[in-house]
Amino acid sequence: MKAIQDHYPPEFAHCYGCGPANPHGLHLKSYLDDDGTVARITPDPMFSGGVPGNLYGGMIASLLDCHGTASAAGFAYRTRGRAMGDGGEPIRFVTASLKVDYRRPTPIGVELVIRGRLVSLEGRKAIVALTLHAGDDLCAEGEMIAVEFRKPA
Amino acid sequence: MKAIQDHYPPEFAHCYGCGPANPHGLHLKSYLDDDGTVARITPDPMFSGGVPGNLYGGMIASLLDCHGTASAAGFAYRTRGRAMGDGGEPIRFVTASLKVDYRRPTPIGVELVIRGRLVSLEGRKAIVALTLHAGDDLCAEGEMIAVEFRKPA
Repeated sequence: MKAIQDHYPPEFAHCYGCGPANPHGLHLKSYLDDDGTVARITPDPMFSGGVPGNLYGGMIASLLDCHGTASAAGFAYRTRGRAMGDGGEPIRFVTASLKVDYRRPTPIGVELVIRGRLVSLEGRKAIVALTLHAGDDLCAEGEMIAVEFRKPA
Repeated sequence: MKAIQDHYPPEFAHCYGCGPANPHGLHLKSYLDDDGTVARITPDPMFSGGVPGNLYGGMIASLLDCHGTASAAGFAYRTRGRAMGDGGEPIRFVTASLKVDYRRPTPIGVELVIRGRLVSLEGRKAIVALTLHAGDDLCAEGEMIAVEFRKPA
């Protein structure tokens, strides 16, 4: 199954965190599911925090950020009754604001699961609630305000 | 002049964003000055956002995060009348919460200036206000709640 990011317009697909067109990037892949959205990733050990074996805070914010804008796009397709890749204008959101609460150290070497839930979608503005788990442990959670990007006419 | 991060205890200096002990990392360097704290960095072009030439949101959050915890440590030294490297117990903060507001696209290829200002320091809890400028343009700003890390006795 193609990820939400795989449907980004190619000219907007260069994100280091999740853009398919960035050869150096992390290529985070986000998917719609029945409960909302989900992405799974096992970051490289070099992305440690102060202590080896824990993920650095910036990467945690990055994963929530990339998954959040992808989630906003996915939710907008679903809310509008559209399918990704339907040939219509691709939907792409950008971050206006991101809040991250760090609940406990995030381990490296295990798969992390990032989930998104739509709080609201009004016009071009989406609010997405985000969580990051390692196994059963909630390591971080956050909320994003995302705004739909529209190409200049 | 040594940066705040250069005074981190070696066992807590592995952060990808700013740890001197991370050979793969970005090595962000934060300094106390008369107005607060400042860090300067010109990120690699691979850290693009959706569009080449703009920095990805996760890196913006990372720079504010690393500079924020360093700032909290620097402000704690100053507030307590201590000098970094004075032979006493090193001061190290970790992020409890980070909020980032993205004001405009952040360009790649120019030096970015990240500044921190102490909002409050009460016991182990610091609140730091953060800005990120490219030239005269305010590209992002944020606020962090940081908590002082104490080694287990």
